[in-house]
Amino acid sequence: MTSPTGPARTRPTRMVERVSDHDIEALTTLLDANRVAHVAFVSADAQPVVLPIAFARDGDNLLLHGSTASRWLRAIAQAIPVSVAVTSLDALVIARSAFESSMRYRSAVLFGRCRPVEDSAKQAALDLITEALLPGRVAELRRPTAKELAATLVLRFTVEDFTIKVAQGWPDDSPEDVRGSAWAGVLPFETRLPQAYPAPDLRPGIDLPESVRRLLGGAPA
Amino acid sequence: MTSPTGPARTRPTRMVERVSDHDIEALTTLLDANRVAHVAFVSADAQPVVLPIAFARDGDNLLLHGSTASRWLRAIAQAIPVSVAVTSLDALVIARSAFESSMRYRSAVLFGRCRPVEDSAKQAALDLITEALLPGRVAELRRPTAKELAATLVLRFTVEDFTIKVAQGWPDDSPEDVRGSAWAGVLPFETRLPQAYPAPDLRPGIDLPESVRRLLGGAPA
Repeated sequence: MTSPTGPARTRPTRMVERVSDHDIEALTTLLDANRVAHVAFVSADAQPVVLPIAFARDGDNLLLHGSTASRWLRAIAQAIPVSVAVTSLDALVIARSAFESSMRYRSAVLFGRCRPVEDSAKQAALDLITEALLPGRVAELRRPTAKELAATLVLRFTVEDFTIKVAQGWPDDSPEDVRGSAWAGVLPFETRLPQAYPAPDLRPGIDLPESVRRLLGGAPA
Repeated sequence: MTSPTGPARTRPTRMVERVSDHDIEALTTLLDANRVAHVAFVSADAQPVVLPIAFARDGDNLLLHGSTASRWLRAIAQAIPVSVAVTSLDALVIARSAFESSMRYRSAVLFGRCRPVEDSAKQAALDLITEALLPGRVAELRRPTAKELAATLVLRFTVEDFTIKVAQGWPDDSPEDVRGSAWAGVLPFETRLPQAYPAPDLRPGIDLPESVRRLLGGAPA
């Protein structure tokens, strides 16, 4: 991911001026390790609304998708200001006081706007989303039908600005607390896909595909 | 969790009128299984902002907390409209087409307002948050200092309205796709805390506390 360009350069606020290569790399890693973002916008009656939406990174942008019947997705598609949070919880940080106890996490908050992906680019965008969820899956599936494409709204979120916070430390207790008797340490979360359950209507003789076999047991995010 | 009361009753919009006991139970289970919410609000310059914030359920309300130095947390504290998403991703749903592929998830979107917890109730609220993260931990720790309490902003989020979506199905492919050769099934996510790593400055002879031992190997959400 390269540094945000365009509108961000004209905005003196927030973090873009001090975005480092390190931040860009951390953001890219975080985005690629997550499949769901929390997308916030201001509704027509001026209320904040936040929704979880599946996404995939496409270069410097994010691709979001959903049903064309989704009222909120259609609202977001109007290029209104949108804020997108992508969060990984990595560990519990158990300190010697409640005050110092916390989490290891990586949190990106992006600001920008969404526009519909044009029809000619829709199929490629959906393929990219499918591959992000399950690498290798596109080659195992039939192509989408025209009806399916028409029923799917794909949005391109252009990042105008972002902040990223990465907390990966140890408990930071006072010397007095360290001399006490309380335990302190870190408990990392581990997320896996240990097993595949065939659909009840799966016909006999259809083996697990390569894409699913590669994913099983791994740490998908 | 009981049905939202007060302001919600005066609002004819959205879901509150058709909230069922089943929805309330699903919401309570979802809130208790998660430690981080995504909180959205409208900034002073009319921009949407979404942030991950640790939370705990306290009866019908949520408790949020953070540093009194957090500008955004102080903004939320002003009883402005806030939207809170709590999301569990439960499984990948791998269908015989990209179109039908999806996720099993539980998603709650709550609407309401935050107000600071009064000083007299702050310590009890923080204890509740600590216990939600690590049950049994409060009894193992010294009490917070006055300085720590003063540095912590605790907010009570009052739920005025909510929606909950629970998707727990199997791939729903067309008969034609079922007759094809593609595999279909479900891959559940499993999240664990497999191991505790002592802090580098932990003094020798301090064993794992009971609270941490109970949590290890479990599925904390």
